[in-house]
Amino acid sequence: MYNTALLTDHYELTMVAAALRAPIAHRECVFEVFARRLPDGRRYGVVAGTGRVLDELARFRFGDAEIAVVERFLDPDTVAWLRDYRFSGDIDGYREGELYFPGSPILTVRGTFAEAVLLETLILSILNHDSAIASAAARMVSAAGRRPLIEMGSRRTHERAAVAAARAAHIAGVGSTSNLEAARLYGVPSAGTAAHAFTLGFTGPDGTDEKAAFATQIEALGVDTTLLVDTYDITQGVRNAIEVAGPGLGAVRIDSGDLGVLARQVRDQLDSLGATETKIVVSGDLDEYAIASLRAEPVDIYGVGTSLVTGSGAPTAGMVYKLVEVDGIPVSKRSSHKESRGGRKTAFRAARPSGTIVEEIVSQGGGKVPETNGLITRELQIPLVRGGDVLDGLPTLTDAREHLARGLVSLPWEGLGLSHGDPAVPTRHVVG
Amino acid sequence: MYNTALLTDHYELTMVAAALRAPIAHRECVFEVFARRLPDGRRYGVVAGTGRVLDELARFRFGDAEIAVVERFLDPDTVAWLRDYRFSGDIDGYREGELYFPGSPILTVRGTFAEAVLLETLILSILNHDSAIASAAARMVSAAGRRPLIEMGSRRTHERAAVAAARAAHIAGVGSTSNLEAARLYGVPSAGTAAHAFTLGFTGPDGTDEKAAFATQIEALGVDTTLLVDTYDITQGVRNAIEVAGPGLGAVRIDSGDLGVLARQVRDQLDSLGATETKIVVSGDLDEYAIASLRAEPVDIYGVGTSLVTGSGAPTAGMVYKLVEVDGIPVSKRSSHKESRGGRKTAFRAARPSGTIVEEIVSQGGGKVPETNGLITRELQIPLVRGGDVLDGLPTLTDAREHLARGLVSLPWEGLGLSHGDPAVPTRHVVG
Repeated sequence: MYNTALLTDHYELTMVAAALRAPIAHRECVFEVFARRLPDGRRYGVVAGTGRVLDELARFRFGDAEIAVVERFLDPDTVAWLRDYRFSGDIDGYREGELYFPGSPILTVRGTFAEAVLLETLILSILNHDSAIASAAARMVSAAGRRPLIEMGSRRTHERAAVAAARAAHIAGVGSTSNLEAARLYGVPSAGTAAHAFTLGFTGPDGTDEKAAFATQIEALGVDTTLLVDTYDITQGVRNAIEVAGPGLGAVRIDSGDLGVLARQVRDQLDSLGATETKIVVSGDLDEYAIASLRAEPVDIYGVGTSLVTGSGAPTAGMVYKLVEVDGIPVSKRSSHKESRGGRKTAFRAARPSGTIVEEIVSQGGGKVPETNGLITRELQIPLVRGGDVLDGLPTLTDAREHLARGLVSLPWEGLGLSHGDPAVPTRHVVG
Repeated sequence: MYNTALLTDHYELTMVAAALRAPIAHRECVFEVFARRLPDGRRYGVVAGTGRVLDELARFRFGDAEIAVVERFLDPDTVAWLRDYRFSGDIDGYREGELYFPGSPILTVRGTFAEAVLLETLILSILNHDSAIASAAARMVSAAGRRPLIEMGSRRTHERAAVAAARAAHIAGVGSTSNLEAARLYGVPSAGTAAHAFTLGFTGPDGTDEKAAFATQIEALGVDTTLLVDTYDITQGVRNAIEVAGPGLGAVRIDSGDLGVLARQVRDQLDSLGATETKIVVSGDLDEYAIASLRAEPVDIYGVGTSLVTGSGAPTAGMVYKLVEVDGIPVSKRSSHKESRGGRKTAFRAARPSGTIVEEIVSQGGGKVPETNGLITRELQIPLVRGGDVLDGLPTLTDAREHLARGLVSLPWEGLGLSHGDPAVPTRHVVG
């Protein structure tokens, strides 16, 4: 067990120190997490990270190591309060795998000011990162149609972010990951092929030996493995692969060049060699657009890396954690560009009887189902934490995957387009 | 002590399993980390993360938890080999805080194929992330001139990436961080102001009470604190701040609106209230361009968040880890777009007697200082690990900061420009 209480901002602690000198510290507050807008041109966002937030809640404690840091700048009363800190409030939120839109109240935290403000940074870090990855990954999964994706971007992001990225991508429908810690921690299926270094390693005084590399890999991993065929000449690589493995070879991977042209050539060559069931894996700087552009090509599996783990141009979801209610009084900041709506919100999604969603309804005050004129409405938040305890029976990672798969089907057709545009459905703010 | 051996890709392990069936596993190999190019339009890169790589080396071990995962897909001989795994080779590399350019051999790992290939993913994760942040941060520091920056982006990136980002930003010259774990782990000075929630929390049945919020903060943190003045009306906020704190107030923070216009207004107002020493902190979606655009305004401190921790458009440095030598034989992949140069490289930087650098020289084979026609050359790699042990006396974080500060001064003037362009100096490849 490790503590995560220092994964936060200095000012959360000084605000607590100040608040403890006034009644504010113990007033009942409501904080909400939401995104003012989606990343530029995106049609929808995907919530991910909630499960990780709940995991960290129990580790958000100030032990000796944490106290040693905060007592450098905090008074003894505050330090004593932090030693006993344990979140005792309630949390509700969108499920993981739920779609979200501008203004959707993705997470609602209720507790005293001091105990709830302290969670701001960690909650935002997790939700902003994981939702950014899931949102990008969902577009890639859509672009790939029924073809599976392997997440292999660990090397392009922070080593721990990589684990969370694999988890978020899995929620979004990516089938497997290269990341072994994600396999251990979250049960995401792990997968992999081989690197060019492996083939290059068989170079000796007499020159290169791609066949020896392939034969060794097959001996170790079986004929169902994936051979990387583009270290030297790709046509010779495919010939060597089938010569060594026979026509029952699992797959070949192409990692460079014009993937569409090469996939066709390699498919023809494999078929002519009788390897009609051998699959083609492509990788190399694939994003949702490149995946879509390969839709008509004989590609079986996409390996996605950099662009997935960096959110394909939107590496953070831009969510904020705002105080919206104090002792039942709605509060909000007033400034020109950052308008927040005060008061605790309830959220509903309205759909036609066909299942196609029509609007996101964010209701301020009360929890009444708003008027929707014959549409079917679904309340979007579920209870997650009560009295500081994470509830039992919350949706699993598999539930989240399935929930998102259904959610994507519910989008109006233009919502699944890759082109830039407005959110797939409007957000309507109502006062309940 | 925790293990980090699962922060890697599935295929590193299967390559080891295959390699162990052939002589390749135990052949002496050289792997090099380099970037084929800089992020679009960038003039230089900044190396960061090397210290973290060395920290993790001792934790890259397969204990019971790690073995339980890898034995799902590996044979018993490989599993036994992993149980005993300990890197026993040598590592040389660029210092942290060193500038780098396309092709610079940032890290050179020598060891057997099996032991060295295994480190690929973790090394790249760390260097790609940390160098991306340091490279972006250095541009922001340059744009800010002598004005200090506070890193406050933790909430916009993965919670552990945030810690590494604070460290990388500090190397780049950012003075302090909001992240408390970075303060604990790396000794980066922590700092912070207050959030709008603090002021909003003082709302009661009788309405808002900004003055009570300010008074409480000053009581807790002293008059040297920074008051956030834009929760309601900024002019009233400044008036309230000085009324409560007196003209000796440390600073005010502006977090929204047209920061240039507001900084001038607030400066005039502060001066007219006698608070001539009260500083102005600005924050809110600042990147290097926004920082530069505020150069003529009366801003004292910049708070930077999102754009810093996401690499300001380049969230990963795109470095690769390539096998370049096997038992002394240079090896390289041959494909159309990804040419690698085989053979172990040595790197030098040539400068005029004035100190201005002229070129990066990457020498293949041998370590002789290349001809540079009267220029002063400096060898760029230093020894980091010998026989698996991290060397004593390596540069500290402070050394890295100072090294980079000198490095930036050595750039040709156009190299510090923010506009897109070619690398500040060319990379010349020579055969030694």
